[in-house]
Amino acid sequence: MPKKPSRKTSQSVIGLFRALGVDATSLPRTRPLYRRLVTLLEAAIARGDVPAGMRLPPERDLAASLDVSRATVVSAYRELEARGLVRGYVGRGTFVSAKPDAASAPFAWRGKIAASALQATDTTVRDLVRAAADPALMSLAAGVPALDCFPTAAFQRAMNHVLATNADMAWRHGPTEGLQKFRIALADRFGGEPEHILVLAGAQQGLDLLARCLIDPGDAVIIDRPGYLGALMTFRNAGARLVGWDITRADTDELEELLLRYRPKLIYTNPTHHNPTGVTLSIRTRRELLELAARYRVPIVEDDTYRELALTGPPPPPSLFKLDEAHTVVIRINSFAKMLAPGLRLGWISAVRPIIEQLALIKQQVDPHTQNLSQLVVCELLQQGVFDAHLATLKTEHRRRRDAMAQALRQRVPARHLQFEVPDGGMYLWCQLAPGVRARAVQDRALRESVMVLTGEPFFVGQGGDQQLRICYTSQPAANAVPAAQTLARAIAGAARDATDEPAMVRVV
Amino acid sequence: MPKKPSRKTSQSVIGLFRALGVDATSLPRTRPLYRRLVTLLEAAIARGDVPAGMRLPPERDLAASLDVSRATVVSAYRELEARGLVRGYVGRGTFVSAKPDAASAPFAWRGKIAASALQATDTTVRDLVRAAADPALMSLAAGVPALDCFPTAAFQRAMNHVLATNADMAWRHGPTEGLQKFRIALADRFGGEPEHILVLAGAQQGLDLLARCLIDPGDAVIIDRPGYLGALMTFRNAGARLVGWDITRADTDELEELLLRYRPKLIYTNPTHHNPTGVTLSIRTRRELLELAARYRVPIVEDDTYRELALTGPPPPPSLFKLDEAHTVVIRINSFAKMLAPGLRLGWISAVRPIIEQLALIKQQVDPHTQNLSQLVVCELLQQGVFDAHLATLKTEHRRRRDAMAQALRQRVPARHLQFEVPDGGMYLWCQLAPGVRARAVQDRALRESVMVLTGEPFFVGQGGDQQLRICYTSQPAANAVPAAQTLARAIAGAARDATDEPAMVRVV
Repeated sequence: MPKKPSRKTSQSVIGLFRALGVDATSLPRTRPLYRRLVTLLEAAIARGDVPAGMRLPPERDLAASLDVSRATVVSAYRELEARGLVRGYVGRGTFVSAKPDAASAPFAWRGKIAASALQATDTTVRDLVRAAADPALMSLAAGVPALDCFPTAAFQRAMNHVLATNADMAWRHGPTEGLQKFRIALADRFGGEPEHILVLAGAQQGLDLLARCLIDPGDAVIIDRPGYLGALMTFRNAGARLVGWDITRADTDELEELLLRYRPKLIYTNPTHHNPTGVTLSIRTRRELLELAARYRVPIVEDDTYRELALTGPPPPPSLFKLDEAHTVVIRINSFAKMLAPGLRLGWISAVRPIIEQLALIKQQVDPHTQNLSQLVVCELLQQGVFDAHLATLKTEHRRRRDAMAQALRQRVPARHLQFEVPDGGMYLWCQLAPGVRARAVQDRALRESVMVLTGEPFFVGQGGDQQLRICYTSQPAANAVPAAQTLARAIAGAARDATDEPAMVRVV
Repeated sequence: MPKKPSRKTSQSVIGLFRALGVDATSLPRTRPLYRRLVTLLEAAIARGDVPAGMRLPPERDLAASLDVSRATVVSAYRELEARGLVRGYVGRGTFVSAKPDAASAPFAWRGKIAASALQATDTTVRDLVRAAADPALMSLAAGVPALDCFPTAAFQRAMNHVLATNADMAWRHGPTEGLQKFRIALADRFGGEPEHILVLAGAQQGLDLLARCLIDPGDAVIIDRPGYLGALMTFRNAGARLVGWDITRADTDELEELLLRYRPKLIYTNPTHHNPTGVTLSIRTRRELLELAARYRVPIVEDDTYRELALTGPPPPPSLFKLDEAHTVVIRINSFAKMLAPGLRLGWISAVRPIIEQLALIKQQVDPHTQNLSQLVVCELLQQGVFDAHLATLKTEHRRRRDAMAQALRQRVPARHLQFEVPDGGMYLWCQLAPGVRARAVQDRALRESVMVLTGEPFFVGQGGDQQLRICYTSQPAANAVPAAQTLARAIAGAARDATDEPAMVRVV
């Protein structure tokens, strides 16, 4: 607080106004009086006539000397304070601020950000997509299919066909729910009814729409533990209280306890070729899950994006959406990111009409409709059989990559350092490090050699995952498996040395 | 409330348990006792052994007779109540509900929707994009450029070139901010720095990201009056208090009053070929606006989507973003929807780095990145000069359409019924109806003849717009101007008859 100013300085402001010939009669009548006062004082402060630290005259005194109402002066002082030019101290008066917050100073943008937006500080997804796009990195981090198998020539033919025959539909607006012919093609190939489908610009958009549609801040959400990091981020930023359900144990009694205890708004699960663990829930567990959801009246959001990527073993059981024949409790999310390409940004949601309706009302605000051209082209690929032929190719290649990566890791990394099971499908090896070896240390060391993997941490509600690595085996050609495994072997050995060194150092100190 | 049951019925539940051989010793130890009790009672209710309306034994009695703690019975009764099977009445006991809320009943989805989502009931944008996609309608409603001028052949060539040379970049993930080469091309053509650009899936996504980034519920937002309906919807649904600034008067003193009174979080304006009025703010007004924004430290969101669609008259003044040389207060939104095609879903935001950073953090949750292929193809179109050549063609065609529509309306609709000025650019005629003629009546009558226009209402904060029509003159070929004007003439004449009839009928009654 500035030191107490003399009575004299306060008087000098009144003197200043007098010198300027300011009184009520000279203040123009077209604008409110207080505005004129503000302008005058602002100019006087800018010129330095009223220096920083000076106390302004008490409101009553200035009002009397200018023959205006006290309210006018109060308004003017408040306005100056709002502009950062003066500051009032209770019982001491109003002082010119030491450093007027000049209009030319850069905007304090941080102060403009909404409270909820300031919570969005997790950069994991952005970093993942950036790394996946970086040709200097060998990324085993983001879940990317074998893009060198992408049927580019067939895509080009389909695109040229669409533009030759149906360009007007591509260029104009489309319905928010998606083009009808595309919804029909999706229902034909993946089940459900066309009217129960909302086309998305990718699965992540679907999660965001669902969070907006269903989550009030403070609602509990039950989510796989570990579970998809994009879903965790979305529900967390929507203000949900996240509750983890151990997907590897998949104990439905445990789930019932959580339902009783937390009364959640929804259950999010990825029951088929689960990301990141690779587990697939049995038909029995699925039925129990549906029964619990119906009994406790809690919707299930089923992430079904890996279903078509079964590689070995028996085909996975039907989706929860399909088992829930009346489609009363399950909302299913699908995407072409893992079946075709993430760069396409194309997915869809299947649910009962009331939910599709509400989601479409929210989507119109966010993205009035998904790009038409990609809908039309993928529709062609589905109808011409290109899609299913591609899927067969993709699965053969993914199997080759999975086996190459598993073999390379087993040969290069001692089993005491790294344990994993070879999954029947999906895209990931979920690896357990030896006790004490920190996943972050492995990640950092591998990154220094331009190989990127994910630690388990972003997949966990609360603590966990600091001893796990997720390795995407589909994104790199099989020929990269050995160099990747060599780098990881070095990184793990290094991190293991750190782990044994650290306690020793603590002892020395 | 059910009538008082006899002591006997309560005793029969205890009898039932005894008959089932249930006591503490027979209850399995693997699950909590109360869960077992719940299961037993639920089954008894389902079988009808414990009928609707029956009072359950007092907790103390049942606990004593089963030799379990009272807490166990309390937990069980609470759980049954939560499931809708029983209901407790203070001082009277716990009764079996008359209609158990069967798990097989359809889900009450409405009850699951978040409070904020229930506010999203405005279907205007969804209806607009749906109508624009409906070949049976002659839509003058949505703002759509002359799509028959779209350079489809050049687009195809660019697409084939991109897929032949750069398919891997198209299919893989891209950076959240947009592909670097596309950001460079945007900065070269439209100004700003590549690092200050965030690529969007359309301008509406930009509005949504900005609302999430900047608006806390209850914040005031100053917006053009009339103003873009998509922006109104977005800010309103974000919980903002909307305050209209009359863009046709464009009085900056009035704006200052609003800034003082409402302390808004941001100002949203579309100062160039304004939607819907067609006005363009003068350079003087722009400078005053910037000065006010800087003085009051309120960011301006500038919608600059119509700038390139100047048709006649002098070129519009520079954008607020350009005039704000330090780019401290202006955030600019652009889109290719009006310059190329709305179906493409491609736009961008220009702003200082802290805002771009924060928007990217929010975008990763919503849509990890915008589709790569459209970025790469439009990049080609910009670099090869196809884009600028197309813009020249488009403007010639838009001028033709504007003049045809203006002439047709002037010839077919009496001036006393409809007044408008021919704008220098943009896409719309903003038309004033005669006093008493309701825009809704005109819209309904025209729609019965399959011609769709918009009333002014969705463009206004609060009341207003019920005497205005917005007619998009660019979306239909010039040859449709006369039939459209004929339909509108009939619709307006009909609505005018309604207007004169109504008071007469009131008088008769």
